[in-house]
Amino acid sequence: MPRSDAARPGLPCVVILGGGFAGLEAARALRGAPVRVVLVDRRNHHLFQPLLYQVASATLSPADIAAPIRHVLRHQGNAEVRLGEAVGVDPAARTVRFAEGGDLAYDFLVVATGARHSYFGRDGWGAHAPGLKTLEDALEIRRRFLLSFERAELETDPARLRELLTYVVVGGGPTGVELAGTLKEMARLTLPREFRRIHANLARVVLVEAGPDILPAFGQGLTAKARRSLEAIGVEVRTGEAVTGVDAHGVTVGRERIDAGTVIWAAGVEASPLGRSLGVPLDRAGRVVVAPDLSIPGHGEIFVIGDLASFSHGLQGPLPGLGAVAIQQGRAAARNLLASVAGEPRSPFQFRDRGTMATIGRGSAIAQLGPLRLSGWVAWLAWLFVHLMLLVGFRNRVAVFMEWLFAYLTTQRRVRLILGASRDEAPPSG
Amino acid sequence: MPRSDAARPGLPCVVILGGGFAGLEAARALRGAPVRVVLVDRRNHHLFQPLLYQVASATLSPADIAAPIRHVLRHQGNAEVRLGEAVGVDPAARTVRFAEGGDLAYDFLVVATGARHSYFGRDGWGAHAPGLKTLEDALEIRRRFLLSFERAELETDPARLRELLTYVVVGGGPTGVELAGTLKEMARLTLPREFRRIHANLARVVLVEAGPDILPAFGQGLTAKARRSLEAIGVEVRTGEAVTGVDAHGVTVGRERIDAGTVIWAAGVEASPLGRSLGVPLDRAGRVVVAPDLSIPGHGEIFVIGDLASFSHGLQGPLPGLGAVAIQQGRAAARNLLASVAGEPRSPFQFRDRGTMATIGRGSAIAQLGPLRLSGWVAWLAWLFVHLMLLVGFRNRVAVFMEWLFAYLTTQRRVRLILGASRDEAPPSG
Repeated sequence: MPRSDAARPGLPCVVILGGGFAGLEAARALRGAPVRVVLVDRRNHHLFQPLLYQVASATLSPADIAAPIRHVLRHQGNAEVRLGEAVGVDPAARTVRFAEGGDLAYDFLVVATGARHSYFGRDGWGAHAPGLKTLEDALEIRRRFLLSFERAELETDPARLRELLTYVVVGGGPTGVELAGTLKEMARLTLPREFRRIHANLARVVLVEAGPDILPAFGQGLTAKARRSLEAIGVEVRTGEAVTGVDAHGVTVGRERIDAGTVIWAAGVEASPLGRSLGVPLDRAGRVVVAPDLSIPGHGEIFVIGDLASFSHGLQGPLPGLGAVAIQQGRAAARNLLASVAGEPRSPFQFRDRGTMATIGRGSAIAQLGPLRLSGWVAWLAWLFVHLMLLVGFRNRVAVFMEWLFAYLTTQRRVRLILGASRDEAPPSG
Repeated sequence: MPRSDAARPGLPCVVILGGGFAGLEAARALRGAPVRVVLVDRRNHHLFQPLLYQVASATLSPADIAAPIRHVLRHQGNAEVRLGEAVGVDPAARTVRFAEGGDLAYDFLVVATGARHSYFGRDGWGAHAPGLKTLEDALEIRRRFLLSFERAELETDPARLRELLTYVVVGGGPTGVELAGTLKEMARLTLPREFRRIHANLARVVLVEAGPDILPAFGQGLTAKARRSLEAIGVEVRTGEAVTGVDAHGVTVGRERIDAGTVIWAAGVEASPLGRSLGVPLDRAGRVVVAPDLSIPGHGEIFVIGDLASFSHGLQGPLPGLGAVAIQQGRAAARNLLASVAGEPRSPFQFRDRGTMATIGRGSAIAQLGPLRLSGWVAWLAWLFVHLMLLVGFRNRVAVFMEWLFAYLTTQRRVRLILGASRDEAPPSG
């Protein structure tokens, strides 16, 4: 991307790095404003991460929860979308460097490159315990889960069979809980009738959380309810136990060995490495510590938002990496940016907590909406409604609603394809 | 798969290799019959190949045209489905050998492992010109096509830009024609409004056919109509010219060089290598020459059907590799197999040609239904109807119909995701 390209004379150029909740919302909030917007993402699609686990569990297709960023912004005349991977920022020169080569000059920069899952330095674990951050991750988890049943169907050695049908989910946050719940349900309801040898309902799903409780973001009462619901459908919940080892055949929890054919990592995230190149203080998780107006110290023209930002003004501890935080920060950054363009003062960011929810399974969820605490059916319906409304693009809403209706009524999963197993040129038999 | 596994005493065991049109139809035709059926495929899903090009063109999701074989046969008590790759047959010992190890004994064997695309010995071309036989192939073609537009949007060198926006489809059969038509349309109608720099309608699509005419399976008149329709939407059709070279930057057609960023191979197929292990005569394309009852010489208990079979009794030249042929042969093989079980005589296979059709694009197709010759709108509607009805599973029909309606009304493609480009652990920016 030759520099001249973006730094056209005239309107100030706003470069946004990342097309997730934060970056996309910032771009939308600049619609019709007297600026040129260039949004750059290494993927061509915006991903609705809260439903990623449903791709992993073969309920939804990737296209149901992802939309091309270009398509989302197609009617926004002042916005331009580019595919590219930012590898560094030069605040002094006001340029962004890209892996593909070339750099891009900006007048304002919005960095929203998010977080990746972290193995706390044990990167070797990654090969045996995929995380769930991208569509590729979800498809890989789906592949391993479906493959484990196919292999179990042919397995004659009892020990190996037990291993194949044991699934360990590491991390008791919303993603871990939703994955554990949906995997167990799929094993209980969807697959049994289609296998002749194995009793799929013998599948063992273990949810391991190092902290004292699952879903710590929720209050005591709801957390206990969530735990009971998980245990009611047969998920083993183990809290206060840290995973000390992961290999091709299972995990070690504390001192106990659990042989498991499938291990999924939902334990922790680390901020995108791009934050380091800004040359400003980071917090322990590698997130960029931002000022009240979401800009960084010494560079009012650079905003950092979403999972990459560490915002803790007037709070105890920084805001969590939630979609709601990212979206509100995207709007706030755009507002403050335009204030500067207009020569007006900026205003500090304030997070409006509209609540959090998590699903456990069929007709079971917990939700904390301000003073309101919901669980069971009511919470589940609320969850369905909110997530349908949040989905980007009307088409996806309809498609997803149909999939859910189908999955709920039939307890079947439609998207049970094992792909990418063999990359050779040969066709499937027949 | 330990041998004892399948060769239980009692009912005769029918092993079917391949869950495509032929193999799956044979399995279904054995429903309720006094035999045990074991269907083995190296993929877990049955693929509706006629619509594969619509996955490549980002119109449909993989799950729209593929269903888990287990799911299709879930209500068939005498059938069992296994994931496995057959690598050899021992007709004397009546066993099948598998890549995963272990072998499977049979009383009757139905071989329906189909065909793969062939580069006529120039296998080096495969890397630069993917074929279209599997879902992975389709996703790879989709990725290259979408990526070419993203790269073109950032390209400043005119020559390189022309190359990026040039697409060559090799092979003028139905797949090649459908791909060329749909790619050109996507370039013309779907993408332009979403790109700021390139005029996507400048995309050049070249269809190269070595033979004298495209769609040779159709009559002169229809072939000419198809050619005119393709040219009307801007596809360059070149017949009677063979591709003599393929590399990373284009193809050589005869003596002319065409720089192209994307080359797709729809030129030819070769039979599955499994046929060789049967130790019976093969035809020039490597297909197994079968007897009138679809069994092989000297082994009445072995049937070969579908794309792997060469059936030419009372015809000039063997039957083409069409879904209709495969389905009818699947039924016929099952019928003859059951006749033998009942001690009755077998009957020779007879193909009932209900006609062929091919789409060219929006509201344009050709169809040859017995004496009837259709083209344009009528043929297109007939094509839509027939393919919707043929789709396995009611769910898919609804989903596909909705996608088509949407794509037709909005001229948009919903499934425009670039996946698998980077397999690393990092999340999409943001």
